[in-house]
Amino acid sequence: MNTQAVEGPVLIVGTGLIGTSIALALTRAGVEVVLEDANASALQEAVYRGAGSVLSDQVPTAVVVAVPPSVASQELANASQRFLGATITDTTSVKGWVLDEAITLGADPHRLVGGHPMAGRESSGPGAARADLLDDRLWILTPTGHEGDEHVARVRRLIATCGASVEEMDAAEHDAAVALVSHAPQVVASSLASVLVDEPAARIHIAGQGLADTTRIAGSDTDLWVQILRANAGPVAGVLNSVVEAIRQAASSLEEVSLERHAEGESDEPLADVLRRGREGRSRLPGKHGTAATRFAVVPVMVEDKPGELARLFVAAGDLDINLEDVRIEHVLGRPSGLVDLFVRPEVRDGLVTGLENAGFDVRV
Amino acid sequence: MNTQAVEGPVLIVGTGLIGTSIALALTRAGVEVVLEDANASALQEAVYRGAGSVLSDQVPTAVVVAVPPSVASQELANASQRFLGATITDTTSVKGWVLDEAITLGADPHRLVGGHPMAGRESSGPGAARADLLDDRLWILTPTGHEGDEHVARVRRLIATCGASVEEMDAAEHDAAVALVSHAPQVVASSLASVLVDEPAARIHIAGQGLADTTRIAGSDTDLWVQILRANAGPVAGVLNSVVEAIRQAASSLEEVSLERHAEGESDEPLADVLRRGREGRSRLPGKHGTAATRFAVVPVMVEDKPGELARLFVAAGDLDINLEDVRIEHVLGRPSGLVDLFVRPEVRDGLVTGLENAGFDVRV
Repeated sequence: MNTQAVEGPVLIVGTGLIGTSIALALTRAGVEVVLEDANASALQEAVYRGAGSVLSDQVPTAVVVAVPPSVASQELANASQRFLGATITDTTSVKGWVLDEAITLGADPHRLVGGHPMAGRESSGPGAARADLLDDRLWILTPTGHEGDEHVARVRRLIATCGASVEEMDAAEHDAAVALVSHAPQVVASSLASVLVDEPAARIHIAGQGLADTTRIAGSDTDLWVQILRANAGPVAGVLNSVVEAIRQAASSLEEVSLERHAEGESDEPLADVLRRGREGRSRLPGKHGTAATRFAVVPVMVEDKPGELARLFVAAGDLDINLEDVRIEHVLGRPSGLVDLFVRPEVRDGLVTGLENAGFDVRV
Repeated sequence: MNTQAVEGPVLIVGTGLIGTSIALALTRAGVEVVLEDANASALQEAVYRGAGSVLSDQVPTAVVVAVPPSVASQELANASQRFLGATITDTTSVKGWVLDEAITLGADPHRLVGGHPMAGRESSGPGAARADLLDDRLWILTPTGHEGDEHVARVRRLIATCGASVEEMDAAEHDAAVALVSHAPQVVASSLASVLVDEPAARIHIAGQGLADTTRIAGSDTDLWVQILRANAGPVAGVLNSVVEAIRQAASSLEEVSLERHAEGESDEPLADVLRRGREGRSRLPGKHGTAATRFAVVPVMVEDKPGELARLFVAAGDLDINLEDVRIEHVLGRPSGLVDLFVRPEVRDGLVTGLENAGFDVRV
């Protein structure tokens, strides 16, 4: 057990993906964990997976509320009133309103430390939980200014025990940030995908990887997202209005073009502006390991689509002592072979190309 | 040489990514290819890559115009007038207006067969071209009704020689389809990414994979996209207006929520509707091999982020005689190990899990 580990028992309220992952991480570190969930089968599954035991008469030192946004404030207030000495924290992805509301409902501001672990998966529920889900992830704390130092320190120990790193942000700033990078993009992806619903299949079947990537997150759970968006309504609406403004700028520019087809295009400028700003905005996104978007070199290799072929390729790369940063397999309509893009640090690219070619691979550079 | 191969010499006008890839594919099949490009260095690079020889006094049987949309109509008309017997085709991603305009500018409708190979890469230019870029891809033809059978037949042979498969569509229908699945999504991704430009870095640095995927195509070339969008202005503007309507529906719903925080949500319904329709629309996208989105089983495995580790994993999968349909490497902030998701057909999932566990792998199911 790590000397920094938080002292148990820790109560996890809500054994979904995040709650169960935290429980597994704490259990891994030897901390006593007790569990609670209104859904008996979710609770059982978390216990079965080794996340901890069902709460009976233990007195928790800390309570982690990991429930959907619509009930988070109430559960924080309940926890505060049920466990009078305990530190109370949460994992809700919206902070300002949830914490204010929790205090209004009776949570003790001195013991309430709001948090948001930045981790997730496409699948949900205790079955998708992993002890390492939080390892090396950001876990944002949003102090209200009322919390006692000992409670903040305990939550920080809890986060360290889960393997995550703390970052403090103002709650309003946090909510603006997640509106920008997560909540508004969800609505935009869903809106784009929603126009496909009534279109003929003959149009949709020519879609390629671009549309698949752009709409990937539109597959997420509707009920949970309604709650998240509702809890961060103002900031999300603000970002959405900016996105609408940009799309409308491009669309008006195109409507002008379509009216005066032959006139040479001053009307191009607003359109080009949106595309240019899009490129610039895109380039600001963090890359692997949180650095500014690293440019990896790409080495495309054609392999047959059959067992063992990828292995042969990866063995060859391993033999060259070259680390693959990422791999993409390009899907080609109905063909029995596939193009595999290997992403490596630029300085090792040439070595990889030569090495793979020497090993007889069909490198497509 | 394939008995179906198109008869040469074929002239490729425009040695960018698509033109050079077509040239390489024809050359691969033994067809004589001649090349032309206003950009001397692009032309040289295509020749150097073995795509064909520079046009001198050869008389082409067919001319493939593979230039940006803004000059495609003029180049089609020029080709028709320079090579009086030749079949004239193109690769422009917008068809209705480009073909009409070409005929207006003097292209012979009897010899003009409009085409659009559905292939591309993130990189552009002759350096990125590949002989197999068109293999098994769709190549759409959009007949105007004026073309002679012998010219359509020749373009079909040319497409078959490149390894692609033909699909015929009405030009207006084609333009509506690409507006839906490619052109409008480009503007939406760019618009979303554009709002990042003026935001503080502290907000952007918490972004995860969702935003990265949603905005990936925003990195594309601005000048080329202005031309494409301009050439398909009406249909693209139409789709964009539908997307804007969906985003505005969600945003208004959120604005109401933010005004009357405690009122229980009738205002949820329009928001939920957008998200639900988004899920439904997303599920209509084609998956690998052009089938309706196949659901693969996912087997997550934790591996160390060092040379040879992926190889060990893939060798093990190969030894089990299991074909990997796709692979994703999850990037985790600054950690020395990575979670690799292996996508396999559902019926082989259990065998893979057991086999990898027996081989000592850290399978996370």
